[in-house]
Amino acid sequence: MHAITLTTDFGSTDHYVGVMKGVILRIAKAAVIVDITHKIEAHNIVQGAFVLRHALTWFPRGTVHVAVVDPGVGSDRRIIAGRYSGQTVIAPDNGLISLIHRELQLEAIFSVENSRYFAGPVSRTFHGRDIMAPVAAHVASGVPLSTLGPPANSVDVLKLPTTQPIEPGGLAGCVLYVDHFGNLVTNITAEEIGHLMQRKSPLIVCVADQPVGQLRGAFSDVPPGEPVAMIGSSGMLEIAVNRGRASDRFGAAADTPVTLRRREA
Amino acid sequence: MHAITLTTDFGSTDHYVGVMKGVILRIAKAAVIVDITHKIEAHNIVQGAFVLRHALTWFPRGTVHVAVVDPGVGSDRRIIAGRYSGQTVIAPDNGLISLIHRELQLEAIFSVENSRYFAGPVSRTFHGRDIMAPVAAHVASGVPLSTLGPPANSVDVLKLPTTQPIEPGGLAGCVLYVDHFGNLVTNITAEEIGHLMQRKSPLIVCVADQPVGQLRGAFSDVPPGEPVAMIGSSGMLEIAVNRGRASDRFGAAADTPVTLRRREA
Amino acid sequence: MHAITLTTDFGSTDHYVGVMKGVILRIAKAAVIVDITHKIEAHNIVQGAFVLRHALTWFPRGTVHVAVVDPGVGSDRRIIAGRYSGQTVIAPDNGLISLIHRELQLEAIFSVENSRYFAGPVSRTFHGRDIMAPVAAHVASGVPLSTLGPPANSVDVLKLPTTQPIEPGGLAGCVLYVDHFGNLVTNITAEEIGHLMQRKSPLIVCVADQPVGQLRGAFSDVPPGEPVAMIGSSGMLEIAVNRGRASDRFGAAADTPVTLRRREA
Repeated sequence: MHAITLTTDFGSTDHYVGVMKGVILRIAKAAVIVDITHKIEAHNIVQGAFVLRHALTWFPRGTVHVAVVDPGVGSDRRIIAGRYSGQTVIAPDNGLISLIHRELQLEAIFSVENSRYFAGPVSRTFHGRDIMAPVAAHVASGVPLSTLGPPANSVDVLKLPTTQPIEPGGLAGCVLYVDHFGNLVTNITAEEIGHLMQRKSPLIVCVADQPVGQLRGAFSDVPPGEPVAMIGSSGMLEIAVNRGRASDRFGAAADTPVTLRRREA
Repeated sequence: MHAITLTTDFGSTDHYVGVMKGVILRIAKAAVIVDITHKIEAHNIVQGAFVLRHALTWFPRGTVHVAVVDPGVGSDRRIIAGRYSGQTVIAPDNGLISLIHRELQLEAIFSVENSRYFAGPVSRTFHGRDIMAPVAAHVASGVPLSTLGPPANSVDVLKLPTTQPIEPGGLAGCVLYVDHFGNLVTNITAEEIGHLMQRKSPLIVCVADQPVGQLRGAFSDVPPGEPVAMIGSSGMLEIAVNRGRASDRFGAAADTPVTLRRREA
Repeated sequence: MHAITLTTDFGSTDHYVGVMKGVILRIAKAAVIVDITHKIEAHNIVQGAFVLRHALTWFPRGTVHVAVVDPGVGSDRRIIAGRYSGQTVIAPDNGLISLIHRELQLEAIFSVENSRYFAGPVSRTFHGRDIMAPVAAHVASGVPLSTLGPPANSVDVLKLPTTQPIEPGGLAGCVLYVDHFGNLVTNITAEEIGHLMQRKSPLIVCVADQPVGQLRGAFSDVPPGEPVAMIGSSGMLEIAVNRGRASDRFGAAADTPVTLRRREA
């Protein structure tokens, strides 16, 4: 029996998440169910895609990850079940798996259509309960993905903001995600920064044209209250304030521009 | 070993919920514990009754549901343990089980008095920890309800707002619950609507005298930003705004009037 | 396999808590993981120390409690693993275990340094994921604390506000913690109050010089809306308002003075 994780925009006030767990336990009594979060902003697929991607690879191989940020429920959007780098994902085909699809190794992906694994009758308003939870329980119990439906030849992938070189030898990106601490996680990867670091002249990080300083290694490398730029725990350039909130300090949110510039520039 | 669910107004900031789980694990090491929610509004028994009723029937038979919205803790209010439609409920006798009692099949119900199953000494301020959690752990482990105390001959049931016919061939009800998405769940059931639908002339849904339109099948049957009335996932008439918040759009909350009127009227 | 609890200031919006659970499940597939809370105020070590201490002793012996409120992550602060009154605690050595250390029985404590039990490579920004979660999984699976590193000869303990006698025969303390219901948990213990009660003249409780009244046994010993002072469920003097919020009523927060005075005074 594999573990099952849940990532949704359902909040934690209503019965919806509990109901999904009840449906899972009716099929897989011994299932281990882990909440990633239920506080994705309502209908915010980009935020869901980010959290899902950064949770995924830390779980045991074979874990089944159910993601439900699903404003199109009841329309003709598909539900897909894919295997990426040994992890299974079940989600609406609306871009929620964009970052996984771009960054992990696709092994197989199917359109979820076989109603044998649904908890019928299927409503038009809650496929998390009627389709995704029961399918996840069956898959965690050993049902092969290939029995869920035909291969999904293409999937819906969001066009997310990319980084651009800026002369001389710098990089422009943006904030991708603001976390609970007000830390700004950008779309600039550790790998891109490693590349820039091959050139010796110092790099200065700016958020919306406000200087943050040079790259550091940890929050505590600067005094409390001071801003700091570093490779964060998600493997991306991250801007923080030691014991403070960078989102407040820089008035920054998703899409705020972030640059790495050469000091000589 | 049966699963145990928890529904409380304790919030998720303090140690109270964790303590209940610790008490359960001391008695039933292998218990599967599922949080329904801990965000029932403080002391809001109607809200607790709604969430509990709509979570309950999705769980495996024999699941033990503990509900603690308990402003009368330490007074002479009883604690009851009942079996409804194959599900076990343990709660203060203050109306929390009103909707279960009205809508599900009562099989047996007892007053919880046998201190052998308590985690003594029993405080006068936290019966969730001292009585309901340990009793649930024992019941989930196989202790029969009938050993908990004498039969509970009557239970405290809330007088909840009922629906009323309005001429010609319509129905007046109200909002019973506003969910995390701002969707308005009413007290008008799918069954009542099925009855109204036998007559052919169109029904118009209004919230506080503002028209929502005809009944639809899903959020996505209307464009983003538009209101929609449908049978929601809880089997009740529900008013939503596609990708928006009906509670904001209509200035609606619990008890706001909702009507179904004939177009010819 | 022992249970593992988590107490953090990570919030429940991001992937951080889920990632810790994934890391635990990779090492200990059958681990039971219990969230105490993830809503400790960011970097608030005193609040974390309070919640951790009051959750701890309700769990089965051998439970492994991971606490991460860790503003100093990446600095030279140690991580410690201790056994107190049969419970195991893993936390940064920054005062988080202050209340446990003061009130429970220390059995053994070590500095966590053996990287064999880490989930490498170890970042400088997320030791919850890279050190504390994997070490907890190993300890819950049976790895002895003594293999984690050298004994920790001293630990960082916060200087928390103490109570002071006030003449004649009273006591001055303060609010230590405000809970989800707005109840004020003070630093005055049931034991101290038992001592004061040996003298017969009535004690009056005041919050910031506003009278609350005499000691009672439960919320429901006063009418709804009225304030009440009692020994709360944590074994401390607690000030509440029946079905209301004492923190609002008295404008009180952590450190607000609370006194017990003799009526004759």
